[in-house]
Amino acid sequence: MSALVAIEFLAVVVAAIYGVLLAARQGMDVMGVFAVSLAVAFGGGTLRDLFLDRTPLFWIGNPHYPLIVFIIALLSGAILRFVVRIRPLLVFPDAMGMALFTLTGTGYALEAGVGPFVAVLLGVITGTFGGVLGDVLCNEVPQLFRPSPLYATCSFTGAWIYLGCRYLEWPELTSLVIGATVIVLFRLAAVRWNWCFPAVREKRPSGP
Amino acid sequence: MSALVAIEFLAVVVAAIYGVLLAARQGMDVMGVFAVSLAVAFGGGTLRDLFLDRTPLFWIGNPHYPLIVFIIALLSGAILRFVVRIRPLLVFPDAMGMALFTLTGTGYALEAGVGPFVAVLLGVITGTFGGVLGDVLCNEVPQLFRPSPLYATCSFTGAWIYLGCRYLEWPELTSLVIGATVIVLFRLAAVRWNWCFPAVREKRPSGP
Amino acid sequence: MSALVAIEFLAVVVAAIYGVLLAARQGMDVMGVFAVSLAVAFGGGTLRDLFLDRTPLFWIGNPHYPLIVFIIALLSGAILRFVVRIRPLLVFPDAMGMALFTLTGTGYALEAGVGPFVAVLLGVITGTFGGVLGDVLCNEVPQLFRPSPLYATCSFTGAWIYLGCRYLEWPELTSLVIGATVIVLFRLAAVRWNWCFPAVREKRPSGP
Repeated sequence: MSALVAIEFLAVVVAAIYGVLLAARQGMDVMGVFAVSLAVAFGGGTLRDLFLDRTPLFWIGNPHYPLIVFIIALLSGAILRFVVRIRPLLVFPDAMGMALFTLTGTGYALEAGVGPFVAVLLGVITGTFGGVLGDVLCNEVPQLFRPSPLYATCSFTGAWIYLGCRYLEWPELTSLVIGATVIVLFRLAAVRWNWCFPAVREKRPSGP
Repeated sequence: MSALVAIEFLAVVVAAIYGVLLAARQGMDVMGVFAVSLAVAFGGGTLRDLFLDRTPLFWIGNPHYPLIVFIIALLSGAILRFVVRIRPLLVFPDAMGMALFTLTGTGYALEAGVGPFVAVLLGVITGTFGGVLGDVLCNEVPQLFRPSPLYATCSFTGAWIYLGCRYLEWPELTSLVIGATVIVLFRLAAVRWNWCFPAVREKRPSGP
Repeated sequence: MSALVAIEFLAVVVAAIYGVLLAARQGMDVMGVFAVSLAVAFGGGTLRDLFLDRTPLFWIGNPHYPLIVFIIALLSGAILRFVVRIRPLLVFPDAMGMALFTLTGTGYALEAGVGPFVAVLLGVITGTFGGVLGDVLCNEVPQLFRPSPLYATCSFTGAWIYLGCRYLEWPELTSLVIGATVIVLFRLAAVRWNWCFPAVREKRPSGP
């Protein structure tokens, strides 16, 4: 439980910074940046908590989370000046945020007593929905739905591996580290070598 | 109750296949197809369960539902090859899915003890929200919001008729069959003869 | 409590009329108008109730609310004919709707025992999410995310002032009136003199 909470905090910070970058690309003002950061940082976990009927929601039970996102949004000008120099490095925190949220999602779902497939599904939702919501709010076609390097698949694979470690009764921290490492490395490799699934298409001569 | 569960299963399968068709038209990969199918199959029912505070959510309490959607997404290539030949027939399962979800929604809402108008409303939400969500994820203007053949109206009418049968204390299965038949026939007729409501417009000389 | 309920009713009516205007601009039919009005009137409060785990939802516990929205949608033709003449005055009910929803949101959140920052956040979500949802359904970039006169900021400021009055143990009605007045006047001034925040941007030479 406590390991889950610690990495949750880290994931919120990483996701909020990702939200700032996303919103700034659209030229939003500070309130828009705050709203997008909230959506990216809390979207997935909120859906998970609503689906599992966990109360209070993780960001209502930890009221310093929204406060931190607010401070990050206020500092967005400074963050952007710093972050723009390290942009090529950003794929790393993005992958880490997805990894951390995926594992907290899977872990909380197991605690709530659901079966393995649903636990993995809730992990993937927690890991990817924030990014989908951020893209929708910024009026872009979500990465999840474009032909782009594997994204949800990395989250899906890592969640199964974390689950496997838990079923082998390995210590929770070990399972978390293994799961997160798999997701991050898988995602980095997918981006580096542009691993994509082929599009599923109807074979039709004419258009819709 | 048991009749509701049986038709729910059928509605999930029909909606997932509809989701595959929707996603394939956008050239998504298998994960995107899975995500859209999940949204179409579970969107309406999830909203209903959250609104009525029913726990666990119907697809968490029936963990074989997401598994079936996953298998349908994996088989999407084969499904598409088969389905493309019977495309003109697809309006029928689409209408049936809407009918089945509408009636489960209305039925569960009545069980939760809400009044008739809210029960019908929750039925229509259950019946139509999955399709709206699928359209939004595929970046199309939802059918519900375009001038197009009657859609929510069919769901609305059938829900009232189902409600009427229940108030007359007819057996549940009879009520379900009557309600579903009305929705399916109404919807098929609306598509066949292109029944539309006129647009509600401001009469103004100039643009917005 | 009772003062909150009274202004909630007013806010629902105002928001539903705003939804009619929004939907009519897109040339939707009467069902589309009804759906958009429901989303604008109930979107924010539904999110608040789900986040706070309040049951039943405010519009399920007050089943005359959806009925009123339905009647407003049915009368949308007449409403539009009347409203078009007073369009320049519409900024007033819009600001009032936001003010009323913000304060009910903050008030209910305090009742649920959350801290001040989260209470204000839930107030702002209640006050602005309906409008965001309406814009998304009508395929427009939400006002919250465009460079436009201060919007969420007015809601945010008024919620803090309402909270301050409550902490000073002023009577609830006084606190509500003061908070609402601040929001409405702040918003009207922002529209009148076009107060905007500057966009938060990365300073980069080239495009994304």
